[in-house]
Amino acid sequence: MAGIRNTLRLPELQRIDPTSYAELRKGMELLERHYRDMCDIEFTIERGKLWFLQTRVGKRTSFAEWVIAFDMWQEGLVSRDQAFLRLDPNRLEQLFKPVIREDQKGSEKPATKGLNASPGAAVGRVVFTADAARDWADRGEKVILVRRETTPDDYHGMIRSQGILTSAGGTNSHAAVVARGEGIPAVCGADEIRIERAARAFTVRGTEVKEGDWITIDGTDGSVYVRRLDLDDPPLARAVKGDEEARQEKIWKAFQAFMERADQARRLRVRANADTPEQAANARARGAEGIGLCRTEHMFLGEERVAAVRKMIFADTEGEEREALDALMPLQQGDFVGIFEAMDGLPVTVRLLDPPLHEFLPNHVDLAVAVAVAEERGDGEVVLRDEKLPLEEARDVLAKVEELSEANPMLGLRGVRLGIVKPGLYAMQVRAIVEAACDRRAVGGHPEVEIMIPLVATQEELRQMREELEPVAQEVLSRRGVELPLSWGTMIELPRAAMVAGEIAEVADFFSFGTNDLTQTAFGFSRDDIGKFLGMYEERKLVPANPFVTIDRAGVGRLMQMTVGAGKAVNPGLHLGICGEHGGDPASVVFCHEILLDYVSCSPFRVETARLAAGQAALGSSDQASK
Amino acid sequence: MAGIRNTLRLPELQRIDPTSYAELRKGMELLERHYRDMCDIEFTIERGKLWFLQTRVGKRTSFAEWVIAFDMWQEGLVSRDQAFLRLDPNRLEQLFKPVIREDQKGSEKPATKGLNASPGAAVGRVVFTADAARDWADRGEKVILVRRETTPDDYHGMIRSQGILTSAGGTNSHAAVVARGEGIPAVCGADEIRIERAARAFTVRGTEVKEGDWITIDGTDGSVYVRRLDLDDPPLARAVKGDEEARQEKIWKAFQAFMERADQARRLRVRANADTPEQAANARARGAEGIGLCRTEHMFLGEERVAAVRKMIFADTEGEEREALDALMPLQQGDFVGIFEAMDGLPVTVRLLDPPLHEFLPNHVDLAVAVAVAEERGDGEVVLRDEKLPLEEARDVLAKVEELSEANPMLGLRGVRLGIVKPGLYAMQVRAIVEAACDRRAVGGHPEVEIMIPLVATQEELRQMREELEPVAQEVLSRRGVELPLSWGTMIELPRAAMVAGEIAEVADFFSFGTNDLTQTAFGFSRDDIGKFLGMYEERKLVPANPFVTIDRAGVGRLMQMTVGAGKAVNPGLHLGICGEHGGDPASVVFCHEILLDYVSCSPFRVETARLAAGQAALGSSDQASK
Repeated sequence: MAGIRNTLRLPELQRIDPTSYAELRKGMELLERHYRDMCDIEFTIERGKLWFLQTRVGKRTSFAEWVIAFDMWQEGLVSRDQAFLRLDPNRLEQLFKPVIREDQKGSEKPATKGLNASPGAAVGRVVFTADAARDWADRGEKVILVRRETTPDDYHGMIRSQGILTSAGGTNSHAAVVARGEGIPAVCGADEIRIERAARAFTVRGTEVKEGDWITIDGTDGSVYVRRLDLDDPPLARAVKGDEEARQEKIWKAFQAFMERADQARRLRVRANADTPEQAANARARGAEGIGLCRTEHMFLGEERVAAVRKMIFADTEGEEREALDALMPLQQGDFVGIFEAMDGLPVTVRLLDPPLHEFLPNHVDLAVAVAVAEERGDGEVVLRDEKLPLEEARDVLAKVEELSEANPMLGLRGVRLGIVKPGLYAMQVRAIVEAACDRRAVGGHPEVEIMIPLVATQEELRQMREELEPVAQEVLSRRGVELPLSWGTMIELPRAAMVAGEIAEVADFFSFGTNDLTQTAFGFSRDDIGKFLGMYEERKLVPANPFVTIDRAGVGRLMQMTVGAGKAVNPGLHLGICGEHGGDPASVVFCHEILLDYVSCSPFRVETARLAAGQAALGSSDQASK
Repeated sequence: MAGIRNTLRLPELQRIDPTSYAELRKGMELLERHYRDMCDIEFTIERGKLWFLQTRVGKRTSFAEWVIAFDMWQEGLVSRDQAFLRLDPNRLEQLFKPVIREDQKGSEKPATKGLNASPGAAVGRVVFTADAARDWADRGEKVILVRRETTPDDYHGMIRSQGILTSAGGTNSHAAVVARGEGIPAVCGADEIRIERAARAFTVRGTEVKEGDWITIDGTDGSVYVRRLDLDDPPLARAVKGDEEARQEKIWKAFQAFMERADQARRLRVRANADTPEQAANARARGAEGIGLCRTEHMFLGEERVAAVRKMIFADTEGEEREALDALMPLQQGDFVGIFEAMDGLPVTVRLLDPPLHEFLPNHVDLAVAVAVAEERGDGEVVLRDEKLPLEEARDVLAKVEELSEANPMLGLRGVRLGIVKPGLYAMQVRAIVEAACDRRAVGGHPEVEIMIPLVATQEELRQMREELEPVAQEVLSRRGVELPLSWGTMIELPRAAMVAGEIAEVADFFSFGTNDLTQTAFGFSRDDIGKFLGMYEERKLVPANPFVTIDRAGVGRLMQMTVGAGKAVNPGLHLGICGEHGGDPASVVFCHEILLDYVSCSPFRVETARLAAGQAALGSSDQASK
């Protein structure tokens, strides 16, 4: 109803004569211009009277939705909260996404259309493999990855692409889910596209497009253009960056007004998952009130660190291990200083190292093949994708890779288990964190540090880790003469942890729900592997919804609820949050509000989404309000 | 106290003069002969009086324990139930294990000792790799696998060995746990053994033992002998087989009396996990009251089937797939006929195919290396361990292996997910099962068939599977004119299934707890991978006990309890059992009794153990009774 009733209140529309087709046509154009959208109106005129046959809410862009809601409130048709509750937080991201320049969007005809899988426009040169995407991107090219469909093996190329285009798969395909998760525009299931990988080209309606050719995709409406178009930042993105002209637009006023309402209303705090100073600064600019998950994996990567990490993995003696860790410590200290600076005065939850160590070594199959081939050839050197190794060394690495190889790495030696098996490792990280916090204090900063130990299943794991690590932190603080309250907590990401949450809460200052892993273990779904059947599962309604997108209330959600109840009963001061990707999903944010979490943490580009969803949750859901 | 008080009641002992050392010594020998054990008595004589300094229960063999309990009851010192409750079901298995011939056990000196990791004596020729164990065993040799420690990759060799000997690791090492689980004698952590793999030999106190040499191990006391000794079946094993002489021994009378008491008392039914007619017959002879888990994996293996299975995996069209399945059907029908015959009149729970399909294809790394080497050499043929393949075909297989390869197969495309993605597969199995049941009916048999669908996480999975499979079963029954009630159920082996048990119970006739997988997913522990740290975890008490041996009550147990409550509330007729390996662990059997399961199902060689534990659980635990 909303759109229609409102449009009829526009003065120009009220002057239209409903008996004249030309007049009506003019009115429709007026509407479309005003809302930058097509209005979904069906009508007829009988005996001189205008009848609306369909009054359903039309397909509006997010832009139209916000402007309409703002207008309706301003015109007094609805209250501010009614207008506010009608906004769809799922589409808020669209307001910030690049668009095709208005004149070109109007004049260019798409070569084909697919599904609007992830919003925003992207322009780039065509590549057909994830490796090519990575290689081209690394030398500064903008690329669009074109594939039949994607798999988890393509991830490294996907995240370096401007956009993703697939010829198969739906809006819940791997490509679509990853693209939305990473904020990358995508068009999926564009089935007129025929990819000929051998020729490194695709054809679409007779046109051939080769590797390296420019194309443009619009993930907001599914259009694919086989030429290079120009993109614009949308007015809201420009306004946020301070563009005065853009700040005159109604969308900016609407955005300001409604986000202010969201922030007033919400009980949930909103943090971001950010691993670097740049991400932290970006998140803060978008309204993040801290970091809920600062992953430390990347601090073990990069050319100058890889040697030390490998040395740590290969260490035969404690001395060698300590030497390797000592080399990493100052580098990681520097990383933390940058992050604490970007989030000065706001809490930063640092997660100690989580992934299995073999992730820092070459791929098992690749290495085994390279060694076998070198042996067969009598070469003294083994050539891998990223490096060359003397044969002897490659054999040693292979032996270590075999030793560390796991049947199910997701359920293997990682998280707190690593911390326990390699005690120097977490101690080094804690030292780097606390030294960095002291550095910040020394220049007048206000670091708020929370140390998070991942993958805990038993109380003893957390208790013994704290027993080992707190003195390490204390030693640094004493030496540097700094008083700094540290918060120690764990992720709740294993069903067993949820079942014994009361026990764990006795030794934790905070819990952060790792809903990605909790979903994986509760369902027995490896996120990397279920791509093969999740589509079919959703189609046949074998799962309530994609449980990696929206929290499965009946299963995972219930585990969370039990955890909150048991944890709070034992430790009323327990601070509770979520740092899985669900933290940026509006339906899941509502759930987090309901079960009384203190905060959600999400990707930086979802911060506004989470703020809006949290505000709506506090005021009652949109569905309830429109009744 | 028990042993001591009783020994003093033996008439010969009462005639002993406590003031004479020679007399006392004679008395001790008498005791040892009587109980085939060393009594743990420390005493002193002061002023003509005999003082017992230590009266703790001595280290008795299981044999002594049963005979003592029987004697005490017979002599009226304790009631039958008191005696019964003092038996340790954890050690019952020992009564059936081969022993070293009495004269040799007395005269031979062990070359070294390790930990008594899994009871029973074993004799065989030394091999040092799992592959060698398999190869030697396959050509009829009896082998003992000697390793520093074992890993999951050694499993195929371990289960073909007579015994296992390791130089490192404790009684909860991988070797020890697998050996006990499989009923294979093992001595672990025999640290005087130095293995020189290159030389295919080990040395122990200066003696060298080469591959192929005979050794004997005694897993009941940890002894290692570097020669071939003779083994005897113990009297109970002989008595069970009908040996009249053995039936005169007191142990047989004790066993009969107490097992009768167990069977009278217990509420829990005891079934066995058995996959073949032989296993089923063995289980039945040991008192199993049905099969709680008949795995069907092995029905997809074997020379004549592998081609059809591969064809099914590679099928491009439904027609090809059906053809492959049609080839398997009659073979599997035959398998089921044998099993139903062996268990005639008792329930048989058949689990439809569970493991991921790539388990039926060659190992990824091996195949990738073999193909790369063949390509490098310009060979037209690829040589793998078990087979030779033309290069072209090997490349196709490799491509399929890559396609099916999973990051975490344990959480991937397996169980009901396979049934959904490959609909013909489960239908073929159901046809084979029901045809077999009809075959049995035709000859006057009484098959009781329960069909179990693994790895269910949602109600819809089970509902849709039943919808698809019940008509398949009905079609066979109608065609053959047989009326046969079929029971349809699922395993509860995922935490999510436990959380929504009420929903699933609406569409299930029975639940069977798959506690192996439930433990894996609840803890996030891959059983294949945690060997690296579980030892340390147990030492540092980071886990309550090895959760793969004894059910973790606080976590996994609580999930089970919630499942029982919710399931029964919705479906009061729901039949409840357990088929994880915990079903043969006495402490876990007690738990299953407490949470009101209907049955436990365990390895055939644990059936008596489970019967005894279930009987004790019904009468109250041994600890309570002895108070």
